[in-house]
Amino acid sequence: MSKYVYDFTEGSKDMRDLLGGKGANLAEMTNLGLAVPPGFTITTEACRAYLNQDEFPDGLDEEITRHLEGLETEMGRRLGDPEDPLLVSVRSGAKFSMPGMMDTVLNIGLNDDSVAGLVRRLDDERFAWDSYRRLIQMFGKTVLGIDGDLFEKALEGAKREHGSEHDADLGADALRTLVDTFKEIVAEQAGLDFPQDPREQMTMAIRAVFDSWNAERAVVYRRQERIPADLGTAVNICSMVFGNLGMDSGTGVCFTRDPATGTQGIYGDYLQNAQGEDVVAGIRNTVPLAELERIDRKSYDELLEIMARLERHYLDLCDIEFTIERGKLWMLQTRVGKRTAGAAFVVATQLLDEGLIDADEALRRVSGAQLAQLMFPWFKIDAERRPLTTGIPASPGAASGAVVFDSARAQEWSQSGRSVILVRRETNPDDLPGMIASTGILTSRGGKTSHAAVVARGMGKTCVCGADDLEIDPVAKRVVGPGDLELGEGDTISIDGTTGEVFAGEVEVEASPVMRYFEGEDGVEKDELVAAVHRIMTHAEKRRRLGVQTNADTAEDSARARRFGAEGIGLCRTEHMFLGERRVFVEKMILADTAEERRTALDAIEGPQREDFAGILEAMDGLPVTIRLLDPPLNEFLPDLTDLSVKVALARERGADPGRDAELLDAVRRQHEQNPMLGLRGVRLGLVVDGLYAMQVRAIAEATAELKKAGKDPRPEIMIPLVGAVQELELIRGEAEQVLAAVSEESGVDVRSCPIGTMIEVPRAALTAGEIARAADFFSFGTNDLTQMTWGFSRDDVEGAFFAHYMDGGIFGVSPFETVDPDGVGALVRTAVESGRKGNPDLKLGVCGEHGGDPDSVHFFDAVGLDYVSCSPFRVPVARLEAGRATVT
Amino acid sequence: MSKYVYDFTEGSKDMRDLLGGKGANLAEMTNLGLAVPPGFTITTEACRAYLNQDEFPDGLDEEITRHLEGLETEMGRRLGDPEDPLLVSVRSGAKFSMPGMMDTVLNIGLNDDSVAGLVRRLDDERFAWDSYRRLIQMFGKTVLGIDGDLFEKALEGAKREHGSEHDADLGADALRTLVDTFKEIVAEQAGLDFPQDPREQMTMAIRAVFDSWNAERAVVYRRQERIPADLGTAVNICSMVFGNLGMDSGTGVCFTRDPATGTQGIYGDYLQNAQGEDVVAGIRNTVPLAELERIDRKSYDELLEIMARLERHYLDLCDIEFTIERGKLWMLQTRVGKRTAGAAFVVATQLLDEGLIDADEALRRVSGAQLAQLMFPWFKIDAERRPLTTGIPASPGAASGAVVFDSARAQEWSQSGRSVILVRRETNPDDLPGMIASTGILTSRGGKTSHAAVVARGMGKTCVCGADDLEIDPVAKRVVGPGDLELGEGDTISIDGTTGEVFAGEVEVEASPVMRYFEGEDGVEKDELVAAVHRIMTHAEKRRRLGVQTNADTAEDSARARRFGAEGIGLCRTEHMFLGERRVFVEKMILADTAEERRTALDAIEGPQREDFAGILEAMDGLPVTIRLLDPPLNEFLPDLTDLSVKVALARERGADPGRDAELLDAVRRQHEQNPMLGLRGVRLGLVVDGLYAMQVRAIAEATAELKKAGKDPRPEIMIPLVGAVQELELIRGEAEQVLAAVSEESGVDVRSCPIGTMIEVPRAALTAGEIARAADFFSFGTNDLTQMTWGFSRDDVEGAFFAHYMDGGIFGVSPFETVDPDGVGALVRTAVESGRKGNPDLKLGVCGEHGGDPDSVHFFDAVGLDYVSCSPFRVPVARLEAGRATVT
Repeated sequence: MSKYVYDFTEGSKDMRDLLGGKGANLAEMTNLGLAVPPGFTITTEACRAYLNQDEFPDGLDEEITRHLEGLETEMGRRLGDPEDPLLVSVRSGAKFSMPGMMDTVLNIGLNDDSVAGLVRRLDDERFAWDSYRRLIQMFGKTVLGIDGDLFEKALEGAKREHGSEHDADLGADALRTLVDTFKEIVAEQAGLDFPQDPREQMTMAIRAVFDSWNAERAVVYRRQERIPADLGTAVNICSMVFGNLGMDSGTGVCFTRDPATGTQGIYGDYLQNAQGEDVVAGIRNTVPLAELERIDRKSYDELLEIMARLERHYLDLCDIEFTIERGKLWMLQTRVGKRTAGAAFVVATQLLDEGLIDADEALRRVSGAQLAQLMFPWFKIDAERRPLTTGIPASPGAASGAVVFDSARAQEWSQSGRSVILVRRETNPDDLPGMIASTGILTSRGGKTSHAAVVARGMGKTCVCGADDLEIDPVAKRVVGPGDLELGEGDTISIDGTTGEVFAGEVEVEASPVMRYFEGEDGVEKDELVAAVHRIMTHAEKRRRLGVQTNADTAEDSARARRFGAEGIGLCRTEHMFLGERRVFVEKMILADTAEERRTALDAIEGPQREDFAGILEAMDGLPVTIRLLDPPLNEFLPDLTDLSVKVALARERGADPGRDAELLDAVRRQHEQNPMLGLRGVRLGLVVDGLYAMQVRAIAEATAELKKAGKDPRPEIMIPLVGAVQELELIRGEAEQVLAAVSEESGVDVRSCPIGTMIEVPRAALTAGEIARAADFFSFGTNDLTQMTWGFSRDDVEGAFFAHYMDGGIFGVSPFETVDPDGVGALVRTAVESGRKGNPDLKLGVCGEHGGDPDSVHFFDAVGLDYVSCSPFRVPVARLEAGRATVT
Repeated sequence: MSKYVYDFTEGSKDMRDLLGGKGANLAEMTNLGLAVPPGFTITTEACRAYLNQDEFPDGLDEEITRHLEGLETEMGRRLGDPEDPLLVSVRSGAKFSMPGMMDTVLNIGLNDDSVAGLVRRLDDERFAWDSYRRLIQMFGKTVLGIDGDLFEKALEGAKREHGSEHDADLGADALRTLVDTFKEIVAEQAGLDFPQDPREQMTMAIRAVFDSWNAERAVVYRRQERIPADLGTAVNICSMVFGNLGMDSGTGVCFTRDPATGTQGIYGDYLQNAQGEDVVAGIRNTVPLAELERIDRKSYDELLEIMARLERHYLDLCDIEFTIERGKLWMLQTRVGKRTAGAAFVVATQLLDEGLIDADEALRRVSGAQLAQLMFPWFKIDAERRPLTTGIPASPGAASGAVVFDSARAQEWSQSGRSVILVRRETNPDDLPGMIASTGILTSRGGKTSHAAVVARGMGKTCVCGADDLEIDPVAKRVVGPGDLELGEGDTISIDGTTGEVFAGEVEVEASPVMRYFEGEDGVEKDELVAAVHRIMTHAEKRRRLGVQTNADTAEDSARARRFGAEGIGLCRTEHMFLGERRVFVEKMILADTAEERRTALDAIEGPQREDFAGILEAMDGLPVTIRLLDPPLNEFLPDLTDLSVKVALARERGADPGRDAELLDAVRRQHEQNPMLGLRGVRLGLVVDGLYAMQVRAIAEATAELKKAGKDPRPEIMIPLVGAVQELELIRGEAEQVLAAVSEESGVDVRSCPIGTMIEVPRAALTAGEIARAADFFSFGTNDLTQMTWGFSRDDVEGAFFAHYMDGGIFGVSPFETVDPDGVGALVRTAVESGRKGNPDLKLGVCGEHGGDPDSVHFFDAVGLDYVSCSPFRVPVARLEAGRATVT
């Protein structure tokens, strides 16, 4: 039979799975010899068993009784003893912190008799009755599910009756009467008397904590935070200590370093004569922790010693909750403290300098997500700010602009050069044009998985959502909010997508110093944060096995990516090279009636293509440049069918000759596809449109020959998109090799060694990778398309339509377009890597989908053994960091 | 070292891989003791080695010499002997017959000296010089690659000069002069003298035959016929016999039964004083084989005996080529004969009756493709026919109609109720509307993989293509052809897609007797073919393991499928139930502003749905009916975006109020998807559109309860489409189970046991099938969508755009929408079957894509262990037959 209950002396910080975070750390502190109020923890395993069968598992009750008896012996008091009662708290404590999500009941052990014992012990009648009142209130609400307002109203009534302003002004008699009122509420609402048996109180409270694991808010929170649903919570039974027994008592929280900046020192707050709940309620102002030195020197010194000890023990920034009961310091909780992204880097390097951790551990202590946050623009530190409210930080960055309430105005103003913030209750697919036109998005409803949040992150737009104290009226075009806040269309606001803050007026935005560092504009000496980032990046570089390349289509992007540390271009798209003023050649190619006309159109575009390639190859001199031949369907280069149909119909209606538009419309109709994503694109286009790929290969080959002649070291690689069968690759490869040979002969420069490979982005390519590898020098996983086809949904069509719904419903923890789906898409990647290497041991393997810059995905790609990842230039530092971390985690 | 050469006495009919079909059968006949002109075969292995290194493999030359010496000894003549030369033929012979594709050289061994020996031996100067002339001509063209027209022109010149009408009228002198002319042509064109060394002639001829394996026409043929490209050909060296040595000589072909109908008896043709080439050239008319009895009784009797012997030996209908040289009968070739679909069934049952084969073997002798052919309508056997020409049979069936040359006329006339045949040089995607409007399609260009052929088969339209003696002028709207054939728009023609025949005027079409049999309209006694089909089907039924169900959406289709032997409905689509007059409810549902409005729209459609289900469940009483909940995206129920945009724009331009159209347009725009195939459809729709699936489940449950109350045995199964993650299925399953329980309670009839399963049609579903199986009672593979997503192309968009191109290029041997792609899609099916059964050992597994009725695919599904296939009603007999065959092949 399992052991379901552990005394604090029996556990350790490494038992979080079984004891939860709080229980594990209480045990750790107990065993360090710190003053922790004695108690015991009921395991998560007991919770899971209870949730499965809806009753305590066999033996749990007996174990609790045994441990309770031990606790009574240790404390010299008995639960419910009318003379000198032991009081305990019953608190939840899951493996992962779920602040405010789950239940707590304090003062268990009080009843009509034992309350007298407490009066005697503490010599404080008011305090004892107030404690009993609190127990009934908390128990009624939490354990019995009674509407909390009923108790609050009764309390308000008592205060009115006694002319008291604060709860604390109510005297013992008033509280005694209130206890009776509360007991009546319980009897009426729950149909039972408030249980006088303390052991029964405890059992009921434990069940309530167990049940709270499945409360709706907890379920939603876990989904959002990607916490598994089947962990269960532990329950901590802890003897009560009181910080509200007079001015020699109090309660506080502290951090061993500044969690905002990482600066060394003691940070925290203290509140005299109060319990933790009072701090949360914010009735009185806390004082800085330093004040404690003046108030209670002995406790202060002791606390500082404990803080230092805990930091050395946990080897990290700790946050601590403590209570002083009549001059005696008790530790109530500690854990590794949350911190900002900047603090994470600074603290990690400090601990490294202090010799507490090594460089690998410092690397583990930071994350790519944190680094990405530090690269976004932010509000100037010394800029003036007028805070309006705080919502949920949904998509990082900082943005200022004029308030607009609809897409039409957003587009109009943004086209005239104004920066705008789209303000909506919530967004839906109709708002997409407005979201695209805006610099930032602010909503009053929805969380991190709302439509606004998901779409904004996808677009890289700053977004704050769920700012629920704003009332947004899109018809009247007004926002009203806390105080006398009122905003209309055109008023300027600023939003911080990293913190969720909303400010009035413009707050100056600047590039982050970390970005300036990566751009080579600032050195490392300028500030502590940059120095920390530099040190950790340097170590990550030393450690990483994965190469990091970039996706770039222009010489400018290539140069920037190189500054950011890219070791080549993993994906150079060629489609933009067919846009702009060159669109006319493409139209000619598509409209060509004869092979000769098409040939002429292709010839005309070869020169400009050659220039493009030469620029990129030069910017990446000495590094590989993987050029993907034309991928999108031809109709993407033509006007929209609906728009053009309307235009031609209207021209005819007006008696005008639609002229060239009519001809274009014919072509658009001919090329029109129901599902262009699944149509004539990629290698299919290359096989069907005679001469298209040969022209592109020629442009690459000639650019290469030119640069080689000029003494450069160009390293192009040719990548064929959308291959699903080895025969496709073989045919194009044959054609490409002929062109390379021809250009070698014409130019006198041998360019035949150019590697030729393929994207793996169609499920069939992954399934037949062994065959395909025999005709390929490299594979590059196109995980965007691969995700689309493996799941059978297109990103454009579903992100707005149902992704938010799916994430709220727990079908995805995270969008599979953000982090690679390990079970579906990941299975195909693993298969393809394995059989690809078997088919061709020299095969080079990389990934060039957007997953290449996603932290979790980078670890996945490292684990499956790819050679490199490729991502957008701005993600290159993130990928470098995570590639390093992947080797030490 | 390999043995590269086999004497005819060393081989057997089972060595086709090594000796080719012709060589293996020559050896077989030799060993049966029949009179086969002696010779030997060079193996396909030698050919492959030669093609790899472009020279004879080590030892081959010596082996040939050794076998040649053996042959010379046996024949008592030496190759090139000026006194009495041995002459041989050098013929290709691959494993699979490739008629006319590869090279042959006859009369090897003649030169300036040995021609005199031949004169002496045969005592026929003219014959000897003509033989030499033929050798040089054939050698020049085939081995040396000289343009054959040069020889033909010289021959014509000689005839003109001597006033000869036919080749045979040229005398010995003229032929001797012609030999000189031919030798000059060789010297001029090839830059070498015609080789006088017979051994050199032989070596060069063998190389030429080897090389012809890779001739373009052979490559194209193999692609079209799905013959592997790396087999190589064998080469047969055979001593020459002559059927043209006088009236006591001749040549013929015969079949041991009628290959057209299967009728027993002797069928064949004979041509006196001729070689096989003369039969092909068609200079003189052959006579029926029976005439040989009169001409040469001895040879005739011998031939009949040999035919009977060969049939008993091969246990099948044989076709035979023979030559009589001066009264001596020689067997030149035999093989199992090609036959029509009807003959295949009739012959198989005859052989069964004769005790030559058992019932399993009879089953192996026919195919589902043949059965399918027999089910199409055909021209009445006794209908009058006026043949115009014959093209390539590209899509079976028989059709009569008025000739049209473009889509516009095809649509116009078909709308007015006329039956039309679209006549084009070749078709392209612009012709699709016309193809849809026509009963049949006729083209003058392209083969079985041309656009017309592929699209017509996809649509199930009758099609004849590549009728290349028709000249089609679509501008003048005229067809001219053989004789004085001339057709204009509106003239009636008839085409037979099973034979490729084209007839003038209307030929009466009737349902085939086999179809009437399956429909239960005719009994088996009516004709021999129906009786044969019945017997073989009965045996297939006894053998098959796979269940066969049908795809049907109406009570009528269900009833027909049941007549055809379906054991349930594997796929009942519900989308048509939302069309027609019910479209208005769907529009209301989509346009609903409130949940209540939507609820009302859904309620309104539930009743009609219940009626539909009740009808189908009743028609399939006692058999499973798998109902798929709504699959397609909602926008399929709304008008087309472009059409509606034009309509609204024009209304506004004219100053009219577009009214409801404007509202509809908003909805269409909102619902518009770039790639509807990858959008909000299937289970996604069920999860996002609140109440939709619950309404459908309720309609099913209520129909079931109703029928049960009436004493029926309805067996619905609920199928969820497009599931990619188990969570999707779990959510819908939970909802469905609630509805089933509610209806059980309301109706007092327990309908809760209704199985709930899912389609496996998204690659991710196959990859995570183990998980999904835990929430599913059954899987049904939706191989259409699975093929689309695994290959990343949509059938609608690609069949017209590039499939023909891909098939011609050899990328597909067959469309993966026709026969399941075993390496890609098949790999996913195998994975899903395996892990699905592991996840849920009671899982029922089927397939409901169109592959369910494809012969090759049925074998695949049997092999991977599915429980059943489901296909369209007309394919049910085909699937039943192939499911039986799968167990014996």
